[in-house]
Amino acid sequence: MVTGINKTTDEDKIRALIDGWAKALRTKDVNGIMSHYAPDFVAFDLAPPLQHGADAFSKGLEDWFPTFEGPIGYEIRGLSISAGNDAAFSSSLNRMTGTKSSGEKMDLWVRATFGFRKIGDQWKIAHEHVSVPFHMDGSFRAAVDLRP
Amino acid sequence: MVTGINKTTDEDKIRALIDGWAKALRTKDVNGIMSHYAPDFVAFDLAPPLQHGADAFSKGLEDWFPTFEGPIGYEIRGLSISAGNDAAFSSSLNRMTGTKSSGEKMDLWVRATFGFRKIGDQWKIAHEHVSVPFHMDGSFRAAVDLRP
Repeated sequence: MVTGINKTTDEDKIRALIDGWAKALRTKDVNGIMSHYAPDFVAFDLAPPLQHGADAFSKGLEDWFPTFEGPIGYEIRGLSISAGNDAAFSSSLNRMTGTKSSGEKMDLWVRATFGFRKIGDQWKIAHEHVSVPFHMDGSFRAAVDLRP
Repeated sequence: MVTGINKTTDEDKIRALIDGWAKALRTKDVNGIMSHYAPDFVAFDLAPPLQHGADAFSKGLEDWFPTFEGPIGYEIRGLSISAGNDAAFSSSLNRMTGTKSSGEKMDLWVRATFGFRKIGDQWKIAHEHVSVPFHMDGSFRAAVDLRP
């Protein structure tokens, strides 16, 4: 079935896209990261406000990366990809590790959802949603200490 | 173009699916809500843990709904849908309002991302990610007071 073959290829291409994105993140390469996104993409990120466009997102990375000493650890676990002919989405639990300039160690698991659109022949990230839940004990503390 | 016609129809179907889902949520109809999901769906929800399967998600709704007096307000703003032939995703900013049994008013904007898969002839929610960001001032407070 041609449909089946196309689907497999698209899933492979998206997996490679995510791999490339994560590599760029680990090496704090802002331009490398941004090359994986559609120009009009919308991010729901860990930090306020509720949503960010490409410019604010890129600026956020530029501000955030220097707060780490050396490279960032980025592990992607349980990646699930659902790909159609020109739209797709993925979900995974991602672990960010590193040492902050202050010397503090960071070890944070987040939930990551990506929406992809095929633009011409190329898959791009059109939407990204990264978050942690928050405790429902009235404290409204972000749950930054969860493990899968 | 046949592709174009199919895409419009799929987007319409997904919009109707989201409408039906929101209506069921407003009336606290757990079975009605659950009928919109694929059996193996995975939720990244406001509350811990990092992810929930269908059983835990349904149980969470059953526990959560009685904490409200009367119906829940649920507004969906800026809904964007990208639909392929058998995978799609959406993003929006959603406002939840209501009165808790304690008398406390709730008015919360969240970011909502859905992943959809076409199962047979029917679109279903295969993945859901609902969150708020958290403040990066060292307090780790969930940002429950943001407005779009």
